[in-house]
Amino acid sequence: MTAQFDAVEVIKTKRDKQELSDEQIDWVIDAYTRGAVDPEQMSALGMAIFLNGMNRREIARWTQAMINSGERLGFAELGIPTADKHSTGGVGDMITLPLAPLVSVFGVAVPQLSGRGLGHTGGTLDKLESIPGWNCNLTNEQIKEQLKDVGAVICAAGPNLAPADKKLYALRDVTSIVDCIPLIASSIMSKKIAEGTDALILDVKTGSGAFMKSRAESAELARTMVDLGKDAGVNTVALITNMETPLGKAAGNAIEVQQALDVLNGGGPDDVVELTVALAGEMLAAAGKAAPPAEIEAALKDGRALEKWREMIRAQGGDPDAPLPVAAHSRDVLAETSGRLTKLNALAVGIAAWRLGAGRARQGEPVQAGAGVIMHAKPGDLVEEGQPILTLLTDTPLRFDRALAALEGAIAITDPNAEYQPEPLIIERIA
Amino acid sequence: MTAQFDAVEVIKTKRDKQELSDEQIDWVIDAYTRGAVDPEQMSALGMAIFLNGMNRREIARWTQAMINSGERLGFAELGIPTADKHSTGGVGDMITLPLAPLVSVFGVAVPQLSGRGLGHTGGTLDKLESIPGWNCNLTNEQIKEQLKDVGAVICAAGPNLAPADKKLYALRDVTSIVDCIPLIASSIMSKKIAEGTDALILDVKTGSGAFMKSRAESAELARTMVDLGKDAGVNTVALITNMETPLGKAAGNAIEVQQALDVLNGGGPDDVVELTVALAGEMLAAAGKAAPPAEIEAALKDGRALEKWREMIRAQGGDPDAPLPVAAHSRDVLAETSGRLTKLNALAVGIAAWRLGAGRARQGEPVQAGAGVIMHAKPGDLVEEGQPILTLLTDTPLRFDRALAALEGAIAITDPNAEYQPEPLIIERIA
Repeated sequence: MTAQFDAVEVIKTKRDKQELSDEQIDWVIDAYTRGAVDPEQMSALGMAIFLNGMNRREIARWTQAMINSGERLGFAELGIPTADKHSTGGVGDMITLPLAPLVSVFGVAVPQLSGRGLGHTGGTLDKLESIPGWNCNLTNEQIKEQLKDVGAVICAAGPNLAPADKKLYALRDVTSIVDCIPLIASSIMSKKIAEGTDALILDVKTGSGAFMKSRAESAELARTMVDLGKDAGVNTVALITNMETPLGKAAGNAIEVQQALDVLNGGGPDDVVELTVALAGEMLAAAGKAAPPAEIEAALKDGRALEKWREMIRAQGGDPDAPLPVAAHSRDVLAETSGRLTKLNALAVGIAAWRLGAGRARQGEPVQAGAGVIMHAKPGDLVEEGQPILTLLTDTPLRFDRALAALEGAIAITDPNAEYQPEPLIIERIA
Repeated sequence: MTAQFDAVEVIKTKRDKQELSDEQIDWVIDAYTRGAVDPEQMSALGMAIFLNGMNRREIARWTQAMINSGERLGFAELGIPTADKHSTGGVGDMITLPLAPLVSVFGVAVPQLSGRGLGHTGGTLDKLESIPGWNCNLTNEQIKEQLKDVGAVICAAGPNLAPADKKLYALRDVTSIVDCIPLIASSIMSKKIAEGTDALILDVKTGSGAFMKSRAESAELARTMVDLGKDAGVNTVALITNMETPLGKAAGNAIEVQQALDVLNGGGPDDVVELTVALAGEMLAAAGKAAPPAEIEAALKDGRALEKWREMIRAQGGDPDAPLPVAAHSRDVLAETSGRLTKLNALAVGIAAWRLGAGRARQGEPVQAGAGVIMHAKPGDLVEEGQPILTLLTDTPLRFDRALAALEGAIAITDPNAEYQPEPLIIERIA
C-alpha cells in the first residue's frame, strides 16, 4: 500500500453515501485482515454498506481485495476443464453430493470447496462427516491429486483462501449484516474466484428458506455474482431456484447423505433429480463439454456416478459401505385432516432440523449426524388424516418440543378438489 | 433485567428502520456496559441509529438507560437552587470560567461537571489546568462541600456518572458516528440529568466551528435536548449561538483563562461579556432567581464575581495569583491589505490552535498550556495592511507551518465602505 488511510474517514465516506475509492477499499480490507482496522470499525463500515450500498465497481474491487488477502489456487496444470457449483443455502439442499461425482463422469473436474452450516441452513461438510472416516481437510496438493485421479473433490476451503472473507463473515454474523447483496456476493465470489475454477454455476435460492426471501432480491444477487465472475474471467451462470418449501424429503446430515445415495442409485425425490441434472447440464456446458439431459440422467441410472462417488469418498478416508448414523429418538407429525398438502414451509422445517441438533447456533459447535426432519409428503401430495407428514429425529428428546414449536403454522392441507398450481423449481436463468 | 434479548436481533430491528422497544434499549445499554454486547455489535447498532434515526421515545429511553448505568448525584440536601450550563463545543468558548462564579454571586449554586477537548474544540478542564496547582478530580462529597461553601465548582465528571456514555463516546469517536443528533443529545443529557441539577441552560453552537454546521440541525439538536431535560424534570432552556467565527479573542488554554480574568475584572471582549451575561440571566431565571442584565453585569464590574472565582480556584488547590504559562514561540499573521475584516473562520482558527498544541488528537494526550491563537481583530473591525490579525503561540515552532496551512482562506478583508451586516451572536432561544 502506498497511500495511508484512516478508518474513520473510510467509514464516513460510505456513511455519507459516497463511493469508496479503489485505494480506500484495498486499504481497509488489507488493514482489517492485518488487525490494523478494529472489528468495531469494520462493523460500522459494514452497516453503512448494508444501508447505503455499493456500486458495481466498488463490489468488484471489494471482492478483488478479499481475493488478494490470501492465496489463489488454479487447476490449469491438470489439463482438464473444471467447474464448480455454489448454492446460496437452503433447507434439504444436498445437491452437491450427487452433483460433483455426476459431473466428473463427463470429463469435467469438480473442485468443490464447501462450508459448514450456520443457523437453519445445512452445510455440505457437516453432511459428509456423517460418513465414518471421511476427512474434509485436504492440502492444495491433495486437492489437485484427487482431481486428477478421481475428478471430483468436496472438501473444506483452506485457511489461506480469502482470509479477509473468513474474518469478515464471522463479524457479519454477530452484527446483523449478513443479508446484504454486496457483502454476500463479494463473500461468495472471492472464495470461488480465488479457488481458480474455469466455470461456476450459482444456485441462488429464493423463498422462505433462503437468505433472499423475494425473487427480485434473488435476481439482483444472481446478476451481481454473474457480473463479478465474468469480470474475473470465470464463466458464470446462475439459476434462481425455489426454496419456499424444502428441497427433497430430508433436512439433516446423515439423512441427506442417504437421499444422495438414493439419487446415485437411480432413485430419489423428483425435485432433487431435476435440479441435479439441470445443474450438471449447466456445469458441463459452461466448461465446454455440453451433454443432453438424457445422457446426464443415464449416468445416475447406470451406476457411473455412484462409482465416482465411492472413489471420491474413499479417496478422503471415508467408507462408502459403512452404515450411516441413525438418531436415537423419533417423533411423527401427523396430518390433522385429509386433503392436499399445499404448504410445507422451508424456513420452519430448517429451524426444526436445526433445533433437533442437525445445525449449530455458534461456529465450532458439533452437530448430530442423525438428527433432522424426514418429509413423507411434499406440496401437491394428497394425504390422509392421521398419516405421518414429518418424522423428527434427534439423539436428545428434550429438543422435540422446541422443534415442534418451530413447525407451528408450517403445514397447510386444503380441499383436494380445489385447483392446485405447483410452483416451478427452476424459476429463472441468468447468464 | 427480566427479559433476555439478542444483540443480533436488536441491531436488525434498527437496521430495518423499526422502533427499538424500551426493553431492547434497556437491555442493550446495560449489556454493552457489562461487556455482554461486544463493541463491534454496538458500533453496528450505532451506525444503524446514525442512518435510520430514533424517535423521541427511543431517545428518551436511551438517555434514561445511560443514566441508569451509573450513579445519580443530587443537590436537594444543600437547600440552594442549582443551575448548570452546557455548550456543544466551539472555538474560544471559555464562557464557563466567568459564568460559574458569576451565577453563584446571586445565590444559585453551579455544579459544572466538565470535559476535555478533543479535535478542534477546547475543553474546560484543559483550560483550567493552566492554573498552577488546580485539581479537576473531586469526590462527590467534595463537590457538595464546595457548592455549599463557595457556590460554584468546575470539575471532572466522575467515572460512575453515566459510564455507558463514556464507553459509547469512545466507540463513536473511532467509528464515525459522532455527529448524530440522537446520540449527541442522549450523551450530553444523560450526564447532565445524572448530575442532578435543577436547571440547565444549553448553549448550542451553530456554524463552521460547531459540530452542527447548519442552523436547522442546531435547532433540532437543541429541541431534542430541551425535550429530554423537561421529560426528566430538569428546567431546560437552549440558546442557539453563532460559531461561524470564534468567540472572544483567544483560542487556547492559558490565553482563554487570561480572557476569563479580563471579563471577571470588568473588561474582556464584547461578545464574551454579552454571552456570559445572557447565559447567567437564563440560569438565574431557570433556577427561580431571575435578575436583570444590568445587575448581572454589575457583579462583573464590581469584583463580586472575581472574588467567587478566586475562592473557587483556591478550593481546588489552584493559586489564583500565580502567573499563567506563556508559550515559548510566537508568530504573527498580518493583514494583507487594508479594509474591513469580514471573515475569520472558527473551524480554521480551532484547527490552527489544535495543531499549535492547544488540543489533542487522541484521548489521554497532554496539551500545551501556552499554545493557541490570539485574535487582534474580529469580523467588523477595520484593519490596516501589515497589522497583526492573529498571533500564533506554541512551545514547538515546527508546528507553525501546519497551523498556517489550516488558516489558508480563513480570513477575508473587504472594501471598508461596502455595507457590512454583523451576524447576531444569540440567534434563537428554545424553551
